[in-house]
Amino acid sequence: MDKRIERFNVGRDTKLDQHLVQFDCIASIAHAKMLQKIGVLSGAEFKRLQKQLAAIIELDKKDRFELQREDEDVHTKIENFLTEKLGDSGKKIHTCRSRNDQVLVDLRLYSKRQLLLIIRDLAQLCSNLLKLAERNEFVAMPGYTHTRPAMPSSVGLWIASFVESLLDDLQLLWCAFDLNDQNPLGSAAGYGVPLPIDRALTTKLLGFGKVQNNVLYVQTSRGKIESVILGALLQVSVDLGRLASDLILFSSPEFNFVSLPEQFCTGSSIMPQKKNPDVLELMRGKTAAMLAYFIQTIDTIKSMYSGYHRDLQLTKEPLMNGLHLARECIDIFSLVIEKLQVNKSAAIKGCSRELFAADKALELAQRGLPFRDAYKVIAESKFDFVVDAVKNIKGKRHLGATGNLGLHNLRQRIAEQKRKVQKEKNAFEKKMGAVLRL
Amino acid sequence: MDKRIERFNVGRDTKLDQHLVQFDCIASIAHAKMLQKIGVLSGAEFKRLQKQLAAIIELDKKDRFELQREDEDVHTKIENFLTEKLGDSGKKIHTCRSRNDQVLVDLRLYSKRQLLLIIRDLAQLCSNLLKLAERNEFVAMPGYTHTRPAMPSSVGLWIASFVESLLDDLQLLWCAFDLNDQNPLGSAAGYGVPLPIDRALTTKLLGFGKVQNNVLYVQTSRGKIESVILGALLQVSVDLGRLASDLILFSSPEFNFVSLPEQFCTGSSIMPQKKNPDVLELMRGKTAAMLAYFIQTIDTIKSMYSGYHRDLQLTKEPLMNGLHLARECIDIFSLVIEKLQVNKSAAIKGCSRELFAADKALELAQRGLPFRDAYKVIAESKFDFVVDAVKNIKGKRHLGATGNLGLHNLRQRIAEQKRKVQKEKNAFEKKMGAVLRL
Amino acid sequence: MDKRIERFNVGRDTKLDQHLVQFDCIASIAHAKMLQKIGVLSGAEFKRLQKQLAAIIELDKKDRFELQREDEDVHTKIENFLTEKLGDSGKKIHTCRSRNDQVLVDLRLYSKRQLLLIIRDLAQLCSNLLKLAERNEFVAMPGYTHTRPAMPSSVGLWIASFVESLLDDLQLLWCAFDLNDQNPLGSAAGYGVPLPIDRALTTKLLGFGKVQNNVLYVQTSRGKIESVILGALLQVSVDLGRLASDLILFSSPEFNFVSLPEQFCTGSSIMPQKKNPDVLELMRGKTAAMLAYFIQTIDTIKSMYSGYHRDLQLTKEPLMNGLHLARECIDIFSLVIEKLQVNKSAAIKGCSRELFAADKALELAQRGLPFRDAYKVIAESKFDFVVDAVKNIKGKRHLGATGNLGLHNLRQRIAEQKRKVQKEKNAFEKKMGAVLRL
Amino acid sequence: MDKRIERFNVGRDTKLDQHLVQFDCIASIAHAKMLQKIGVLSGAEFKRLQKQLAAIIELDKKDRFELQREDEDVHTKIENFLTEKLGDSGKKIHTCRSRNDQVLVDLRLYSKRQLLLIIRDLAQLCSNLLKLAERNEFVAMPGYTHTRPAMPSSVGLWIASFVESLLDDLQLLWCAFDLNDQNPLGSAAGYGVPLPIDRALTTKLLGFGKVQNNVLYVQTSRGKIESVILGALLQVSVDLGRLASDLILFSSPEFNFVSLPEQFCTGSSIMPQKKNPDVLELMRGKTAAMLAYFIQTIDTIKSMYSGYHRDLQLTKEPLMNGLHLARECIDIFSLVIEKLQVNKSAAIKGCSRELFAADKALELAQRGLPFRDAYKVIAESKFDFVVDAVKNIKGKRHLGATGNLGLHNLRQRIAEQKRKVQKEKNAFEKKMGAVLRL
Repeated sequence: MDKRIERFNVGRDTKLDQHLVQFDCIASIAHAKMLQKIGVLSGAEFKRLQKQLAAIIELDKKDRFELQREDEDVHTKIENFLTEKLGDSGKKIHTCRSRNDQVLVDLRLYSKRQLLLIIRDLAQLCSNLLKLAERNEFVAMPGYTHTRPAMPSSVGLWIASFVESLLDDLQLLWCAFDLNDQNPLGSAAGYGVPLPIDRALTTKLLGFGKVQNNVLYVQTSRGKIESVILGALLQVSVDLGRLASDLILFSSPEFNFVSLPEQFCTGSSIMPQKKNPDVLELMRGKTAAMLAYFIQTIDTIKSMYSGYHRDLQLTKEPLMNGLHLARECIDIFSLVIEKLQVNKSAAIKGCSRELFAADKALELAQRGLPFRDAYKVIAESKFDFVVDAVKNIKGKRHLGATGNLGLHNLRQRIAEQKRKVQKEKNAFEKKMGAVLRL
Repeated sequence: MDKRIERFNVGRDTKLDQHLVQFDCIASIAHAKMLQKIGVLSGAEFKRLQKQLAAIIELDKKDRFELQREDEDVHTKIENFLTEKLGDSGKKIHTCRSRNDQVLVDLRLYSKRQLLLIIRDLAQLCSNLLKLAERNEFVAMPGYTHTRPAMPSSVGLWIASFVESLLDDLQLLWCAFDLNDQNPLGSAAGYGVPLPIDRALTTKLLGFGKVQNNVLYVQTSRGKIESVILGALLQVSVDLGRLASDLILFSSPEFNFVSLPEQFCTGSSIMPQKKNPDVLELMRGKTAAMLAYFIQTIDTIKSMYSGYHRDLQLTKEPLMNGLHLARECIDIFSLVIEKLQVNKSAAIKGCSRELFAADKALELAQRGLPFRDAYKVIAESKFDFVVDAVKNIKGKRHLGATGNLGLHNLRQRIAEQKRKVQKEKNAFEKKMGAVLRL
Repeated sequence: MDKRIERFNVGRDTKLDQHLVQFDCIASIAHAKMLQKIGVLSGAEFKRLQKQLAAIIELDKKDRFELQREDEDVHTKIENFLTEKLGDSGKKIHTCRSRNDQVLVDLRLYSKRQLLLIIRDLAQLCSNLLKLAERNEFVAMPGYTHTRPAMPSSVGLWIASFVESLLDDLQLLWCAFDLNDQNPLGSAAGYGVPLPIDRALTTKLLGFGKVQNNVLYVQTSRGKIESVILGALLQVSVDLGRLASDLILFSSPEFNFVSLPEQFCTGSSIMPQKKNPDVLELMRGKTAAMLAYFIQTIDTIKSMYSGYHRDLQLTKEPLMNGLHLARECIDIFSLVIEKLQVNKSAAIKGCSRELFAADKALELAQRGLPFRDAYKVIAESKFDFVVDAVKNIKGKRHLGATGNLGLHNLRQRIAEQKRKVQKEKNAFEKKMGAVLRL
Repeated sequence: MDKRIERFNVGRDTKLDQHLVQFDCIASIAHAKMLQKIGVLSGAEFKRLQKQLAAIIELDKKDRFELQREDEDVHTKIENFLTEKLGDSGKKIHTCRSRNDQVLVDLRLYSKRQLLLIIRDLAQLCSNLLKLAERNEFVAMPGYTHTRPAMPSSVGLWIASFVESLLDDLQLLWCAFDLNDQNPLGSAAGYGVPLPIDRALTTKLLGFGKVQNNVLYVQTSRGKIESVILGALLQVSVDLGRLASDLILFSSPEFNFVSLPEQFCTGSSIMPQKKNPDVLELMRGKTAAMLAYFIQTIDTIKSMYSGYHRDLQLTKEPLMNGLHLARECIDIFSLVIEKLQVNKSAAIKGCSRELFAADKALELAQRGLPFRDAYKVIAESKFDFVVDAVKNIKGKRHLGATGNLGLHNLRQRIAEQKRKVQKEKNAFEKKMGAVLRL
């Protein structure tokens, strides 16, 4: 093949595939075990393959199994390594599989681990946010609508709103997790194989939730599962970006309800006085990157015929970028939230009298004046009432209001998430380890 | 307000809000019942309001409650109607709520019904596809990769792959359904109210799965829930678009594996011989519209500060368009699939000898030749083997392969979906009706 | 054809095509004239056709030529009308053309007029903005970076920056205008016709800048030209959305540099004190709609084979929506800018001492201290200098700085735009009229 | 600053900025020359700075000026280098500029060179395509609409349609080029400087088309110009992706009108017979990446307040990626087109009789039968006419039809493009060199 074409075809695969080495080895061992069971490999052959694949994992950990462009991809490099070391046994391992299902199984395992780490870290970020909300449960601050002071709010309400949003995102992440947790191995090039391979066995060995049954669907789901994962991550990203937006505004001198510690701020090359919230702006800005990853992925499969096409290979990069970006943002945001300072007095002082107009109208309504008339009465007053902001927010006692945020309930939901992800993660890592000791 | 500005502000709301009339009335009755419970309304006042709201629903059914631009929006029109009819009781109904939570509750109920109908119809489309797969379970056809003949496949495998994909989409739809099934009522403008409203009561009356707790999160979730719904619909859309792509190609004279009945085809204004698959091309093309709806929605909330902003109002149109589009496409596709003709002999005849090369190599591998060597042997042969395509596809017996598609299992999964959606739908409609008889 | 399929196929075309009636008639007259020239129609036949087509335009103006779904599309309805009125002459008019090039010529003419109106109105908006900048050329206000006060700025600088940006957008609009200004007529279904049609003649009659030559490219350019137009409009939209963002922030009580007159503000249903900038929020929010139109259009043609496909029909709606949206937003924004109040004293008062730190460091640098050392000196000072903000901004005299904005130059550039668009518009409307009097 | 935050903030900047080293040096020399002119630097100081900056360019060419994460960015690293080498002179160079205008000038120069290379290579690709069209001007092939055989076409028509489309894209590229060709230097942080800097001088030294005047607009145009460039590249990308789509289909065994030489094809890991057009599929797939770059960029600036924000830094990566991708795709496609084989006999044989139905109807129309009646006559015939496809396509002699493609005209337009880009490129490189010898 022409060298320039080859370079174009390989693109960034060499770099991306490096992250798949261990999963390719693990899936190869499971596949080999299955081949042994159906008689394609002998027990001794399996053992030799397992040993060499385990050795590759160790080399990779020490950065001594580095892919080069000439290797084409991770699958070829590993197969060549095995063939070189083991001769015929190496040549046999590709029996009953294709690079198509091989890359899929690698990506599913890779995504599974990444999603578990993301879910774990996101639950931790929720904890950090919850702590912040708890510490400031009854710190009054102005609530805004239309970027205009609207009604009394609280730091607790504000921060807890993001916890609840992220908990909803976790549902989406688990849904994506489940769709990803299907074993594609054994679909080969999308049309199966004529040998009686045991897909249930590899599913069990690799700890997948179930077999992804229809062998053609396995191929069509390339890019689809990726877009489902990125779609869920996008919701997380949007939430973090919006919290970053809030923090940028509320930490500006005009508002000053919160402060970012100085070691998180950036200076200007020409304005000596500047303390810029670059970290928050990047957090906000990276939402656009996540959206781009999502669109690239879904757009690749839109209108695509059934079966494998090389375009699908290009979904690897946005998937990996997206998973990496999500982890990084969650991690950094946890740090930011830990150190965020709430300027209580400024927040309370920001609660000007106008904020209480609606409450005053409702008070009149409660005493029997029709609400629309009460509204007019207050509108025509000069808002010359005296109000205790903290008392006001504590006084709102219905479900989800400032005086009844249900933080305890959030704590429980987070704890459940942590338990669930820990359990799944333990099970996953156990399976990954067990394959090496079959 | 300046007239031009008013027109700009109202935009297409008048038209869209017409679809919300009944839900606005139903939610208003539930809200009024709750106001009665906490003493804001008397029993008699509630009854009068309930009666008038029920009357509006009847008027709307007869197209006699038509919104005009001067009405501003559905909420104002209904409130004005009540005030005109009932005086002070009408003026009281807006106590403890805002148009912000009112439009949210309307949209959640609207989306809930639409999603139930979509899920129901999608399950039916799955049934139709499954029947097609069953009728053609062992009809051999070429399987493609890279738009090149690759391996033997079957009409059963091909069509069933879409059933499995749509079943995965149903998981996403249920996940979106659950996030949407939270009661926003009582959040008012996003900061709650000072009266002890009973949000659990309205939740029960309206049949929501749970209260959406944090009152600020309720507002921030506007646009978010919409984008989650559209994200799930987008996956359905992509699947339908890809099936349409396949059908366009496979019904072309060069392939001719399937035919679209003539009454579904369109002629040309100048080419007398043309039979064009416009319906399929539009199906394929509408994926781009769904993607656009999704992007508009998520892009509206990206980087947006907490709390209500008028931009959010603009997410109503893509949401409603997306739900409508999904229903229409599913409905039309059901029809197409019912009438689709499979050209069995053409499909089988399409299976040229080259398709069996991989299987032949695997046969050699099964007899002990290392796969890589077997591959070379076959590559150098002239593919001069004789193959019975039907026997070949029947002979692939592992999970999900052409000889073992697991159609029975798909049938069960579809049946479960149908049961579940029927149950949810009955419960929902019962609640909607019960509110009128409180 | 099945009725449901027909309804699905027609979609919103009936409604959209109504806007194309006059252009379809005008292009049909030009086409008929050409047919006369090459002998397909007699002079008398041409005259009869011209008369009937002119009559349709008059009917349409009076809303008496309303398309119904049964009409299929504007082309068929007009052809049927002509055949009914004129018999054989009507049946002849479709000679040497296809609906494919017919809809293209309609859309090009429609887009041409819309673009001319948009360019005209945008130049006017630039004038309004420039007047605002001139009136406030030396009104000091804080300049922000990172949503943090950074350096002294001026209302003049701020507003004029948008004029300059919109002038750049006008270059993009003219570029889109030029690509749109190519005559597609005569390409028929994308493969030409065997008769010696005279495409130069219809080009001249319809006033197109040139023939779009390659008949297949004409078809492939469907959706492409649309996306080029929408891409240019998107830049306008982003600019308006960003100005709206600025205005929302700067008119908030925390900043208060500008005020939106009360008749442009919206109240709240529960907060009597609220004056909300809904019109600006919608302006900001509609950018997402424009982005969605662009994406839908480009995404429709992405990876599409050469030649006409029915999916292309779906680009009509986002194109028309986008052109309409642009006109509406520009119009409304002109109004807003006319009435916008600048709160001069608040703007000047906002210029706190820290803003001048960089200038102070530069002063030291000018006196010979290396800038990096000067920076440190100022950073360690307490910013306890006294500064006259107005004098400061006037003192910055280099190109494009607050003391030398070059507003005169902008005025000239706007005037040129106005002249150019007026000339093009006159020429266009003259051609449209002349066709009726051939 | 916290190390993790620092790492997050720097992100991929270190890697990307490496490409900006030479432009940062060149712009710094021009800036220093200007500082000398206004008396901030002495002649000797300028000379020393120029020498060191030239030295950096040489180091960079030899990969000996590698940015590390600790360097923060290219600007800081270079300034530190100068300060280390030259002491006070190094500390002075940042006088009257900010990293904000510095990165902008770097990116403008970088983009300018890349755009010139892209335009040059695209003109060359046009040449290659034109040669292919010329060689096959009268090779008949079926023309398709709706993925259905429609009318006789020719390889010449098909290939030349892409030339014409790419020539239109070149107009967009030049428009983007012009908007990019504005000098941002001297805007500092977006609010100018109090010294009388000479922006016309740096504009002349760096060869920019003009000064970008308003200093705030300079900042707001970050991301905007990028999105204009990417928008133009996207059109190129879509064109190449569509040509790739055509080639994938037409080189499949079912069509076989063209062949990709074997050294450009890829095998399968399990199907010995496969020759896959991976290079074309990747070309098609990369359109989605370009769309993603565009969206990320425009989405970053959407709704953003005036003035610099750190999010803007994130537009550097999609811009650079997009420019790189465009160059790569154009280059590879040139290669593919050079080697593409047209299977003339298969193409001609593909022209079945039905293709000529419309022409036959037009023939009848020409003889006086109304077209609609002629259409019916042909529709009811059995298409049993004998046709010479080559004669047919040659016989279509109107502008842009198969017998009159106007290839000569395309050749001239390409030549003009080549002349223009060569002239611009020479001028640009001359300026870049001259700065080193001031």
